[in-house]
Amino acid sequence: MFLFTFRPSLNALSRRFFSQTCILPYEIDRFNAARVRISDWPDDIKTIKASLSKSLEQWRKDNRTSVWLWIPIEKAHVIPIAAELGFTYHNAEERIAVLNQWLLPTKSMIPRFATHQVGVGGAVLREKTNELLIIKERVRNLEFWKLPGGAVELSEDIADGAIREVFEETGIRSKFESIIALRQSHNHPGGHGRSDIYFVCRLSALTDEIKMDPTEVLDCKWVQIVEAMKSSNPLLRRIAQQLAFGLKNGFKESIDFSIDRIPSIVTGKSFDFFTRSIKNSQ
Amino acid sequence: MFLFTFRPSLNALSRRFFSQTCILPYEIDRFNAARVRISDWPDDIKTIKASLSKSLEQWRKDNRTSVWLWIPIEKAHVIPIAAELGFTYHNAEERIAVLNQWLLPTKSMIPRFATHQVGVGGAVLREKTNELLIIKERVRNLEFWKLPGGAVELSEDIADGAIREVFEETGIRSKFESIIALRQSHNHPGGHGRSDIYFVCRLSALTDEIKMDPTEVLDCKWVQIVEAMKSSNPLLRRIAQQLAFGLKNGFKESIDFSIDRIPSIVTGKSFDFFTRSIKNSQ
Repeated sequence: MFLFTFRPSLNALSRRFFSQTCILPYEIDRFNAARVRISDWPDDIKTIKASLSKSLEQWRKDNRTSVWLWIPIEKAHVIPIAAELGFTYHNAEERIAVLNQWLLPTKSMIPRFATHQVGVGGAVLREKTNELLIIKERVRNLEFWKLPGGAVELSEDIADGAIREVFEETGIRSKFESIIALRQSHNHPGGHGRSDIYFVCRLSALTDEIKMDPTEVLDCKWVQIVEAMKSSNPLLRRIAQQLAFGLKNGFKESIDFSIDRIPSIVTGKSFDFFTRSIKNSQ
Repeated sequence: MFLFTFRPSLNALSRRFFSQTCILPYEIDRFNAARVRISDWPDDIKTIKASLSKSLEQWRKDNRTSVWLWIPIEKAHVIPIAAELGFTYHNAEERIAVLNQWLLPTKSMIPRFATHQVGVGGAVLREKTNELLIIKERVRNLEFWKLPGGAVELSEDIADGAIREVFEETGIRSKFESIIALRQSHNHPGGHGRSDIYFVCRLSALTDEIKMDPTEVLDCKWVQIVEAMKSSNPLLRRIAQQLAFGLKNGFKESIDFSIDRIPSIVTGKSFDFFTRSIKNSQ
């Protein structure tokens, strides 16, 4: 995240200006919003309040859509003053809080911060035996078998997350093939009121020998798909059914959303795109 | 979000305790973490610091995994003190900041806050004519045709989000059929460093007459799928190809991830689950 800390000239400016009531140093973004990133707010509450008030007046006069404040954690004493003047939190992480305020008389057009965690499960198949890799976990007081997996990290691709989680939990290296199912759930446990999208990825095993992580997993094994189809876990049962169907009918021609790259018309940058492959079957 | 505001007894407790250095009132969750929700922190910085220090000492002695503070925006003067004692932001929204700190000597096991926005596009088909609904938008200086759509709201189902966005932008009412594609992109514009998952939903039109929202959309029309297959927009072109393939081969048997409900083995609660339908084709 870009901070004024790295802009000595503007810092000097804000320090000088703060000796009296002033318009805060700001930038305008492409949404016509004012963005204020000050790393050295003064301790004097009165000066802060007067400056922030005067600035708001100016931004309203200039028909700015909204104002954004990036506030370092050690300067959080500014936040109650900002709140008095109509700001609320948009988000915060690590050592920065981001507050904002909609300035127009219309309804706020500012999208809420990220709404979802993304989880990945790996349906790892051994080529020769068509066995599936499953792990045993304990959640609350229940022990059950399931697919290995976990949460994707920030900016991590779905495919990479699935491969990484499978390796961390089971020691098995694998190759991404496709997405074969997804699930949405709301108010996810430990999700702080956010939702969760869980992708089941079909992976091909590149190694055989299990070296499970005993801190994360109670047990781990290869099972026949017909055995997994009898699991007490509805999701595992269902995935096993899908895999059996895919083995019979060809994965790509039946259960797979295959990966492709597609460019954005705006930026030209390419993105991972998953859909039924129609390349050789039209 | 649950606040101590609604727990007068604990509030009274914390008020009384704050007259001297004390262990802060807390609860233990199922991860063995201490959770502190105080709505009326005192203004006296020294008392806060001494109490928070003493509490941390106690929680470390008790082998708690971590500590969580829910701090109302008007009491944000506490935050710099918490930061001095090792806390950082986990998240913040509206009028509450959530700070935390991992207490064990091991690597923190606390998952990061939500990492993704979720967007939905509606591929709305008119049954009799097999025409597709598209809209014209301007992004930066580029005008182009695309699928109607937008961001899902907090706790909104993918299907509901697609139907809502299509209606808001075009006035067309529709019925959810399936997910036919998805795209992951990182560092999404306006996403504050978070990522985006965009789902393309196949919808059936229930009405014909377009009543577009001119504040969101430049233009809106029904087009033949073959026409959309010639679009300059790679994503629209690709979706049109998928639709043509689905029309020929049966949507459910080719390009669809159909919706189903699947129960959680832990809670028994059912979730939306999307996968290739294999019900009548095994």
